[in-house]
Amino acid sequence: MTIRIGIAGYGNLGRGVEAAVKQNEDMKLVGVFSRRDPAGVELLDAATPVHSMADIAKFRDAIDVMILCGGSKQDLPEQGPALAALFNTVDSFDTHARVPEYFETMDRVARQHGHTAVISTGWDPGLFSLNRLMGEVVLPQGKTYTFWGKGLSQGHSDAVRKVPGVKGGVQYTIPVPEAIERVRSGELPELTTREKHKRDCYVVLEDGADPEQVRQAIVTMPDYFADYDTTVTFISAEELQRDHAAMPHGGFVIRSGHTGTGTRQTVEFSIELGSNPEFTASVLVAYARAAHRLHAQGDIGAKTVLDVPPGLLSPKSAAALRKELI
Amino acid sequence: MTIRIGIAGYGNLGRGVEAAVKQNEDMKLVGVFSRRDPAGVELLDAATPVHSMADIAKFRDAIDVMILCGGSKQDLPEQGPALAALFNTVDSFDTHARVPEYFETMDRVARQHGHTAVISTGWDPGLFSLNRLMGEVVLPQGKTYTFWGKGLSQGHSDAVRKVPGVKGGVQYTIPVPEAIERVRSGELPELTTREKHKRDCYVVLEDGADPEQVRQAIVTMPDYFADYDTTVTFISAEELQRDHAAMPHGGFVIRSGHTGTGTRQTVEFSIELGSNPEFTASVLVAYARAAHRLHAQGDIGAKTVLDVPPGLLSPKSAAALRKELI
Repeated sequence: MTIRIGIAGYGNLGRGVEAAVKQNEDMKLVGVFSRRDPAGVELLDAATPVHSMADIAKFRDAIDVMILCGGSKQDLPEQGPALAALFNTVDSFDTHARVPEYFETMDRVARQHGHTAVISTGWDPGLFSLNRLMGEVVLPQGKTYTFWGKGLSQGHSDAVRKVPGVKGGVQYTIPVPEAIERVRSGELPELTTREKHKRDCYVVLEDGADPEQVRQAIVTMPDYFADYDTTVTFISAEELQRDHAAMPHGGFVIRSGHTGTGTRQTVEFSIELGSNPEFTASVLVAYARAAHRLHAQGDIGAKTVLDVPPGLLSPKSAAALRKELI
Repeated sequence: MTIRIGIAGYGNLGRGVEAAVKQNEDMKLVGVFSRRDPAGVELLDAATPVHSMADIAKFRDAIDVMILCGGSKQDLPEQGPALAALFNTVDSFDTHARVPEYFETMDRVARQHGHTAVISTGWDPGLFSLNRLMGEVVLPQGKTYTFWGKGLSQGHSDAVRKVPGVKGGVQYTIPVPEAIERVRSGELPELTTREKHKRDCYVVLEDGADPEQVRQAIVTMPDYFADYDTTVTFISAEELQRDHAAMPHGGFVIRSGHTGTGTRQTVEFSIELGSNPEFTASVLVAYARAAHRLHAQGDIGAKTVLDVPPGLLSPKSAAALRKELI
């Protein structure tokens, strides 16, 4: 049975989901839902219908899983519960501190309406959460380290672009190689914020803006840059467009610990992504399959990656997985 | 409620489990069961009782999960079903080709007796199986590569020791760095056996044995060495004892693939182990917790790592895990 997928919200992530669904033969994209005028939304595949978000409730019986592609700050706190009342859902809610509260809301609504809602998938939260768990259960005596990058950070790029005198710009988060080496060596270091990551900004100035003033405004910005070693490189609008349009990212989850008799053991998970939104979308799509199956088994309510039996992510049967992968 | 653990079989793995149970405060080791004379079995902790394997059925009500620490070739095909009739079990059955058959047997017996049997845990099969699955579900267009080592291989060390003229020896499996780099680069290479791993042997000769004859016998041995670049280094019995008594191991599972628009993406899981049996034991113990919980939920029968919701591996509540790890 083909799993019928809907996409709610069509930005970079929604476009990634559209592409990812095509890589999975057991799925079909039924439609994309946007708050914009559907006539103005251009999909990768023009054959897929675009509908107004206002009409989404009409598709209750036509869609098995709705993949929520809105942002965690503005969109999901509203859209998540509203859509979990209508559909099984999967999302990438990534405001770590608000996950417990979001889970409670989604769980209540999904249960009320008999739906399954997998929240906070993607890579962090998501695959990284899973690896933080595996690390601490197999090495209970140890420490877990998460490094992000090298990658483009949307939040920090936005912060750079809001500085007076900045016409455009991007920010890359870069893990410090020496810190990763110290962690891998098993010394269990205590690392400060500054020791773990540095931040590189590429900035296009407004005409007449003072570079040194802009640089100071960026590197001293509290929360975003003040606690890091930050470099600011000024580039042209053409260079920004040519060299910094991709959205690469990556990162590491390392668990370093000891087993019984003081033996050093290290477990590491890492990703290197050509496109952050396309990869996040791929993870969302795999968890959409699991959401569909959990729902078919009567397992309703909100779930995280820690609740989902991994085999449910695959289109293959449990017997085929045992034969091929165990 | 403390989870009451038993250990069936006390070699390197059993000793590792004894140590690992001590790292988990929600568990207690009730006893060790051995086919040897219990009086001759020395535990890390002398306070833990050792019993004869023949008496194991008497402990049905005293043990929540029996961890099977026998070998996959001789012991588990017999002991697995026999003990799954008496207890919830966890094992590290690692004969990949026979997993489907072993699963069927364990599933039938466990269901008959209302028990839960988690099979083929450890790191490969086990954590590596899990990562092979995650790789192919998040990057359906791509290839998965598993590399083993650097590490001591028991099977290959045994093969070396059976060569006439060899008094003692060990074999290390070593992944070829160039092969790993090619995989990481995203070129999706087709790699031969010889290109992926090499084999280094450290051998102590019997008095009067001919080194060149021994070397030839090793490097030409079918299945074990003929398809690999194998080096043989002759050492003294003292060096063997001093430099090669540890059981390090490691490995990599790398999934390299593309998302929708041809973007390169790489996911990698790796481990570096000071002691292979101690780490395998730690994984067994985490899955023992899951076996106990699955059984408490009425979820009986055989399971692999692909069937177990990851959160069940942790002593923490689902709410605590969401708060700390998502």
